[in-house]
Amino acid sequence: MEEIQDPQPWKVLKSEYLFRRPWLTARKDCVQLPNGVVNDEYYVLEYPTWVNVIARTVEGKYIFIRQYRHGLGQTNYEIVAGTMDPTDKSPEEAARRELYEEAGYGGGQWRLLSALSANASAMNNLSYSFVAEGVEKVSTQHLEPTEEITVHLLDETEVRHLLEHDEIKQALMAAPLWKYLAGKAAEGGK
Amino acid sequence: MEEIQDPQPWKVLKSEYLFRRPWLTARKDCVQLPNGVVNDEYYVLEYPTWVNVIARTVEGKYIFIRQYRHGLGQTNYEIVAGTMDPTDKSPEEAARRELYEEAGYGGGQWRLLSALSANASAMNNLSYSFVAEGVEKVSTQHLEPTEEITVHLLDETEVRHLLEHDEIKQALMAAPLWKYLAGKAAEGGK
Repeated sequence: MEEIQDPQPWKVLKSEYLFRRPWLTARKDCVQLPNGVVNDEYYVLEYPTWVNVIARTVEGKYIFIRQYRHGLGQTNYEIVAGTMDPTDKSPEEAARRELYEEAGYGGGQWRLLSALSANASAMNNLSYSFVAEGVEKVSTQHLEPTEEITVHLLDETEVRHLLEHDEIKQALMAAPLWKYLAGKAAEGGK
Repeated sequence: MEEIQDPQPWKVLKSEYLFRRPWLTARKDCVQLPNGVVNDEYYVLEYPTWVNVIARTVEGKYIFIRQYRHGLGQTNYEIVAGTMDPTDKSPEEAARRELYEEAGYGGGQWRLLSALSANASAMNNLSYSFVAEGVEKVSTQHLEPTEEITVHLLDETEVRHLLEHDEIKQALMAAPLWKYLAGKAAEGGK
């Protein structure tokens, strides 16, 4: 690729927290651009690291869940996802914990597939996506009182259909699923 | 697929705006789940419709931009994207406007590719992704004083490399790009 002359980072002249609650931390930065322009009202939303996992059973089924999402006001197919807790030693540990809690599955061979941003202009975190092959049912679900989640085992043709028809609405889930399927296709569809 | 017994939507018992600024609107809902549990502090971020576009020139090059993103603190390859303005008659018109303003390209054959959510639990909007084939340079850029954007024409092999190496960091851009490439592969790679 060509040599790049990149737009340079902004200088933060002032920064203050508007709001700090467990599920919403909003910061207002006064920033100066390299061209000298000052924007005194740039909002950044701070979040912990997020994780999700493309989990497949020993039989090759994909583990999906359905859960009502109040922001969008919809219930759609999703992969298991969550937030890294302070007690999680790594994003993978967080994803393993979420898979256990939300679906009751464990074990398998894990690898990191991607790290993506939901919104790089306003959010400071990344979402790490893992692939877990050969997981097994080890427990019932362990849900929070505020969680109502159903678990669904899907075939690859069903997953592909959902992706093609935009029925996996969350880009942080759709992107790694497409990447995973593209990788499989490149390997010869094993 | 199997018949689904879905988790039901939550009832909103009370709703108030914490913050309403042009670039940040935060709402606090007091919600009741179907199981009776009340969560009196559920935050929803309200945004306008977002758009982006996989634009290809008449020569088949992909139009990418680079722009510093202060939330994540990084500059990465991106497709042209933006927010639907009140004066835009449709998401497609917004995407055409953004392509003209950020890159100076117009024309071409347009189609809607996908509509995805950055974060369905906390955000109320969707991002519409378009494909524009055969666009042409019609102008210089028309940037806001707060925008510093470089334009880059990439080959498909470069785009695929960026996707495989997570160098397109925004999931709302990576997901439609993967979908577009998968569609092309299914058609025989034309």
